[in-house]
Amino acid sequence: MAQRLKVPGLLGELAAEFTGTLVLILFGCGVVAQVVAGGTGDVQSIHWAWGLGVVFGVYVAGRISGAHLNPAVTLALAVFKGFEWRKVAPYAAAQFLGAFVAALIVRWNYAEALAKFDPGNTEKSQGVFSTLPASALGVSEWGGFRDQIIGTAILLFLILAVTDVLNTPPGANLAPFIVGLIVVAIGMAWGVNAGYAINPARDFGPRLASFLTGYENAFQDTTGYPYFWIPIVAPLIGGVLGAGLYQVLIGRFLPDAEPEPGRLPTVDGDEAARIPAAR
Amino acid sequence: MAQRLKVPGLLGELAAEFTGTLVLILFGCGVVAQVVAGGTGDVQSIHWAWGLGVVFGVYVAGRISGAHLNPAVTLALAVFKGFEWRKVAPYAAAQFLGAFVAALIVRWNYAEALAKFDPGNTEKSQGVFSTLPASALGVSEWGGFRDQIIGTAILLFLILAVTDVLNTPPGANLAPFIVGLIVVAIGMAWGVNAGYAINPARDFGPRLASFLTGYENAFQDTTGYPYFWIPIVAPLIGGVLGAGLYQVLIGRFLPDAEPEPGRLPTVDGDEAARIPAAR
Amino acid sequence: MAQRLKVPGLLGELAAEFTGTLVLILFGCGVVAQVVAGGTGDVQSIHWAWGLGVVFGVYVAGRISGAHLNPAVTLALAVFKGFEWRKVAPYAAAQFLGAFVAALIVRWNYAEALAKFDPGNTEKSQGVFSTLPASALGVSEWGGFRDQIIGTAILLFLILAVTDVLNTPPGANLAPFIVGLIVVAIGMAWGVNAGYAINPARDFGPRLASFLTGYENAFQDTTGYPYFWIPIVAPLIGGVLGAGLYQVLIGRFLPDAEPEPGRLPTVDGDEAARIPAAR
Amino acid sequence: MAQRLKVPGLLGELAAEFTGTLVLILFGCGVVAQVVAGGTGDVQSIHWAWGLGVVFGVYVAGRISGAHLNPAVTLALAVFKGFEWRKVAPYAAAQFLGAFVAALIVRWNYAEALAKFDPGNTEKSQGVFSTLPASALGVSEWGGFRDQIIGTAILLFLILAVTDVLNTPPGANLAPFIVGLIVVAIGMAWGVNAGYAINPARDFGPRLASFLTGYENAFQDTTGYPYFWIPIVAPLIGGVLGAGLYQVLIGRFLPDAEPEPGRLPTVDGDEAARIPAAR
Repeated sequence: MAQRLKVPGLLGELAAEFTGTLVLILFGCGVVAQVVAGGTGDVQSIHWAWGLGVVFGVYVAGRISGAHLNPAVTLALAVFKGFEWRKVAPYAAAQFLGAFVAALIVRWNYAEALAKFDPGNTEKSQGVFSTLPASALGVSEWGGFRDQIIGTAILLFLILAVTDVLNTPPGANLAPFIVGLIVVAIGMAWGVNAGYAINPARDFGPRLASFLTGYENAFQDTTGYPYFWIPIVAPLIGGVLGAGLYQVLIGRFLPDAEPEPGRLPTVDGDEAARIPAAR
Repeated sequence: MAQRLKVPGLLGELAAEFTGTLVLILFGCGVVAQVVAGGTGDVQSIHWAWGLGVVFGVYVAGRISGAHLNPAVTLALAVFKGFEWRKVAPYAAAQFLGAFVAALIVRWNYAEALAKFDPGNTEKSQGVFSTLPASALGVSEWGGFRDQIIGTAILLFLILAVTDVLNTPPGANLAPFIVGLIVVAIGMAWGVNAGYAINPARDFGPRLASFLTGYENAFQDTTGYPYFWIPIVAPLIGGVLGAGLYQVLIGRFLPDAEPEPGRLPTVDGDEAARIPAAR
Repeated sequence: MAQRLKVPGLLGELAAEFTGTLVLILFGCGVVAQVVAGGTGDVQSIHWAWGLGVVFGVYVAGRISGAHLNPAVTLALAVFKGFEWRKVAPYAAAQFLGAFVAALIVRWNYAEALAKFDPGNTEKSQGVFSTLPASALGVSEWGGFRDQIIGTAILLFLILAVTDVLNTPPGANLAPFIVGLIVVAIGMAWGVNAGYAINPARDFGPRLASFLTGYENAFQDTTGYPYFWIPIVAPLIGGVLGAGLYQVLIGRFLPDAEPEPGRLPTVDGDEAARIPAAR
Repeated sequence: MAQRLKVPGLLGELAAEFTGTLVLILFGCGVVAQVVAGGTGDVQSIHWAWGLGVVFGVYVAGRISGAHLNPAVTLALAVFKGFEWRKVAPYAAAQFLGAFVAALIVRWNYAEALAKFDPGNTEKSQGVFSTLPASALGVSEWGGFRDQIIGTAILLFLILAVTDVLNTPPGANLAPFIVGLIVVAIGMAWGVNAGYAINPARDFGPRLASFLTGYENAFQDTTGYPYFWIPIVAPLIGGVLGAGLYQVLIGRFLPDAEPEPGRLPTVDGDEAARIPAAR
């Protein structure tokens, strides 16, 4: 402990959550602005840049706050991993604020392109900031709700899996990279129904920023329904669900001890048989 | 052993195989649904998301069961690596079940998009769930059989290579990432003839799920032939073939001892000459 | 010290900065030549190859000079990290020279394709070498200035984050890979307004090379304004800004001691709660 | 030494070179067949699958032979790194043979698609197997020669950089991944002029396989010139050139000792200033 003379404290943790989420959204809303309003890139840019935003957000905030960057993560960790309940609301507030400020920066930097592409600030460019159900595919609000529960359940399930020291997490401080790839894959496979918010801060912060800078219909979907609450509530439910399923399906079967460092993990000494597939 | 108070047992291993394969198929069938029925993304999404599904499936199941996720892997390990024969059928059943359940989740979440894209549940969207030979390219059932033997042989050959502790496997628990890249590459280079099932569970589980939810012709190809058995049998043959070839071409030449940790591998001390190319 | 018989000295450091920047630009200008003049590939090639150019430039120069490869990096490190001021100008000169020579090599290798695509050496292919504001999107010179300050601030903020030993930097000498991904992501999300120079050497060196080989209007934008100074000055400002923000938002909250090797980082001993999200 | 009871010997090394090159070409020619004849995927598939083929080829052969997989690598290592001259010809022969056999497998598996796409076995599908200068861009045979010297020089320069233990090579046995990324980047930025053979075995082995299976004009380009010798000779020259430049520009400035494991590399103790950029 003598070495740890400086401890961040809650202020530091909130700064880290604010900053990490800001980094995430700088890339997340930034890439959609570039592709949709700027006309450069395609959905592959969107998949990868959102994931890379996660990678860098986690590297930025990881040591100080644990880099939740998402109220659904914070809530699930409080429910299942002993994260202090008194910190849940402050963490979420910092995450929302970081996403909000980042969206304002994107709004500012892409002001010309947005004005040219969608001078009326309509749903044509609302997707730069916040998510909507894919009405063109016939996805209703309920469909978005269902989709966001499933998508966030997958997110939390996998975050717990790749960071569980009793399982086989990536080493060499490369977990942020692998966590970012989770979001790349969710974007590719679980994104089209409802825009893969999977994070209340990611959706509501930029939505509010767009509303305050001229997007009058930011809180509703194309049918006029006040959709904004769905990407807040559904991810919170889905995150808890996914984290709980991880405990039930995997967590309770894990050995009590970490695998020996530098060795392939195994559980019963029958290494010759297991090693090839263990990894 | 005192540290290993809790051992998963067969139930835990089957839960891990079930869950890991479920994760794989959530991304695998999910991405095809998104691209084909949802109209978002392209074949690059499909290549990458299938591979990332493998990455996460292996991270999920790795420590408990070794993360086979594929009956062709389980069989090849039984033949060549001493995996217990009595576990082969249970493992395969768990893998089929995981793929089956995942396909139902995909079916449910993309119900609207699938209904809009292909209301009759025809071969137009069958590919979301299971594979077919590329009849447009002139590939027959035999062509699919041949292709699946080769593709799965490549898969097993490379899985054995990148997880062989006597060779130069990736460290820092990053083998799941590299194993996922194998599937990315097979999708890019060995995918067009027959949809790179290379895994009986991946193909039959979702095929059955689609049949039970309205795809009447799920078991046949466009000529009416009951194609479903080919992506079951051919991968089992190909996997054993590829694993055997690894032993013949590489395995028997490897030194008996693992390379020194943290050092570049070499076999005869002539490091100056070897190191630059060894990696 | 007995082991370090050979120390590179300033000449070695300048050779490393020259060479690393040359490698970066061989890929950076090379990929734009291939896509724009050669008609092979698309903006995804450009995003990835620029980032990979950074990866390899950093691997080449990392041990000898620290692999700045960018005067904006060198300046920010002098302001905030004690890099010696007397070396700033020589480093910058070496970086410019490396970029200049690399652009000449690209110019030479793609001479036929450039001559066919744009025989008059106009702005049609100027983008192979240097950046312009996206006038088609309504971005003015001021817009490019603003954009380059923000983009370079993001770059330096993240470089400091992923290389800060008191934070959670990637291990196993993989930081060059992660640093390259920063540039991939900036290209995807912060590239369209002004071509993401974010590096005075990257922009001016090739611009000069193009001017000396027939691009008469290399120093101006399409309105005739001498735009060339903006991708020099704005990155220098943005880099210092981003590095300073890192200190304010993250750096001052970090513990004084590095995380224990091989362990997940944490700050207050409450590991059970933190670990899942810490990575 | 007691542990190293089994040493591969030349036969094992040749088996490894044969097999590693075979793996490389299974993906390399495979992906071009899939994209060109199979109509699935695009140039991004080609860029990534060639690079991933290198990744897996190196993992397969790395420990036994050092995984040259390319006569240009073997020659350059003989010239600059003390690789035994007596092994140069056998290694090259094994590489050619591996590439030849792999191309036959691709030819067989894609027989239907190739027959449908290009029944006359013309230059329309010759590119599945071997390279040609981009005559549509005005690139002559000389242009291909120049391009192959430069491209292979970049390849060898970077291979030496990322595997040099006195520099900052990737750890955790991930160098094969980074080496594969070199080929991804060369494909993106240095591929269009002449198809980035950068490897005599990669080009001539499959060329011969195509000739023996019906491609009558396999050895000439579209002008009738016997182009086949250029992707053999130019890479050999370029490889030696690039490896020599690495020694001149970087190698001679490196410290004599490896960096301390687990620490950021530096050369003069002035770590505070160097670390942020060192990675």
